[in-house]
Amino acid sequence: MNASDARGLPIGVFDSGVGGLTVLKALREAMPHEDLVYLGDTARLPYGTKSPASISRYACQATALLQQRNIKLLVVACNTASAVALEALREQMDPLPVIGVVEPGASAAVAARPGARHLVLATEATVRLGAYREALLGLDAGATVTELACELLVSLAEEGWNDGSIAESIVLRYLSDLADDARHPESVILGCTHFPLLRDTFAAVFDDGVSIVDSASTTAAAANQLLTELSLANDENDTGDLVLLATDGATRFARVGGQFLGHDLGHDDIEVVDL
Amino acid sequence: MNASDARGLPIGVFDSGVGGLTVLKALREAMPHEDLVYLGDTARLPYGTKSPASISRYACQATALLQQRNIKLLVVACNTASAVALEALREQMDPLPVIGVVEPGASAAVAARPGARHLVLATEATVRLGAYREALLGLDAGATVTELACELLVSLAEEGWNDGSIAESIVLRYLSDLADDARHPESVILGCTHFPLLRDTFAAVFDDGVSIVDSASTTAAAANQLLTELSLANDENDTGDLVLLATDGATRFARVGGQFLGHDLGHDDIEVVDL
Repeated sequence: MNASDARGLPIGVFDSGVGGLTVLKALREAMPHEDLVYLGDTARLPYGTKSPASISRYACQATALLQQRNIKLLVVACNTASAVALEALREQMDPLPVIGVVEPGASAAVAARPGARHLVLATEATVRLGAYREALLGLDAGATVTELACELLVSLAEEGWNDGSIAESIVLRYLSDLADDARHPESVILGCTHFPLLRDTFAAVFDDGVSIVDSASTTAAAANQLLTELSLANDENDTGDLVLLATDGATRFARVGGQFLGHDLGHDDIEVVDL
Repeated sequence: MNASDARGLPIGVFDSGVGGLTVLKALREAMPHEDLVYLGDTARLPYGTKSPASISRYACQATALLQQRNIKLLVVACNTASAVALEALREQMDPLPVIGVVEPGASAAVAARPGARHLVLATEATVRLGAYREALLGLDAGATVTELACELLVSLAEEGWNDGSIAESIVLRYLSDLADDARHPESVILGCTHFPLLRDTFAAVFDDGVSIVDSASTTAAAANQLLTELSLANDENDTGDLVLLATDGATRFARVGGQFLGHDLGHDDIEVVDL
């Protein structure tokens, strides 16, 4: 297939659950004409506490399903899967492109604040893998990086308790484990797709003037640029279609996912698939 | 095999993750001579947000693995699996016995407070299935039952933040969704195996004199009684062996599970198995 045939194909977006819908939302805003197919592996979430071998196997299975839907680009909208499985997924998708969320987030953070003290908030698995540290220091040897696992914030975002005193207390408690310097970063990287929902809480807790970078908008900008460079951007002018797939629990996906996507979803909007 | 051959066999205990270790701990205290094999399906936790069909399939696979270890009794130390899959597991284990955590917890609560206003704290799936409501009202038509899904408390217990102001604020926020009567129950049932860890928090939040029933100790007492009735109790006098199996993440299992079991665990204490 040549590039002009591929232009009308959908972008595939994959996450362990509903969190990646923050990336999907950003992709729709950046590229309203593109068709999108989203797959949330809700039967096996969360990936953040699982082993690298399992995460990699799950990510490859999810990608195979999206390949059957004939996607032109894979966006790995899951920090943990991006940190663990990106190379394996690039091989599997070859010659079609793959974008993860770690590189765009790290690039944007370094561009915003060269030589900064970065604080990366993420899941246990992402922290354990040190993917953000590696990406940030690879781009900016003068940066300093602290990574902090904040597993409870995932549940908090799924419960919809995104702001207020409970959310702020939880963030402050996590920060209390850090040295004083790390507690007052110049740049905060939201290294989990759930965390853009907690942006107001982070803004309230961190010092004024801190740069807060989320991987959703930065990944959407990177995907847009890549499709243009590869002549794969859709040149039709109609509004893109959206297909939502989940491996389990359409009702919960609709309820929680609606908050992430920013508009109401019904049970029937989600197609349940087997992996 | 006759009963005297079976007496020396282990008790199998199954949970979606580490939460069931509160039940395992209670079983060891009640029956120190029994061998125990615990299986935590950590690769697929949490069950609480998954669909009944998936939960049932997972529970049957876990039980098959424990059957290969030649168990004499299956304890389903997972409220969600008990609520969804108990009948299927009884068929699979027949003629050997199966105990879930819902019935013993409901019986103990009704025995402690006949005709009481019960509040059941549980996961979304357990609440959706109404298993505690059915069990409580089946035993005591004069009882009233409110069920409250408190998903965030699972993460809180896994983080080890079991008491203090954050835990209390979260419980109070969940309670604020209830009518005034339900907020002041006479009996609180901890319908998730994680919740015994939060017992001090519940004691601080609820009215003085409230009866707090956890399914761990009540299930251990029921298992002890059942083995005695069936002449399946081990009559050896040595300390029982403990085997810990998990489907993923031995390091995390050891770290979090140690808190639940009440003593330190190392990575090597956990055998990782495939389901």
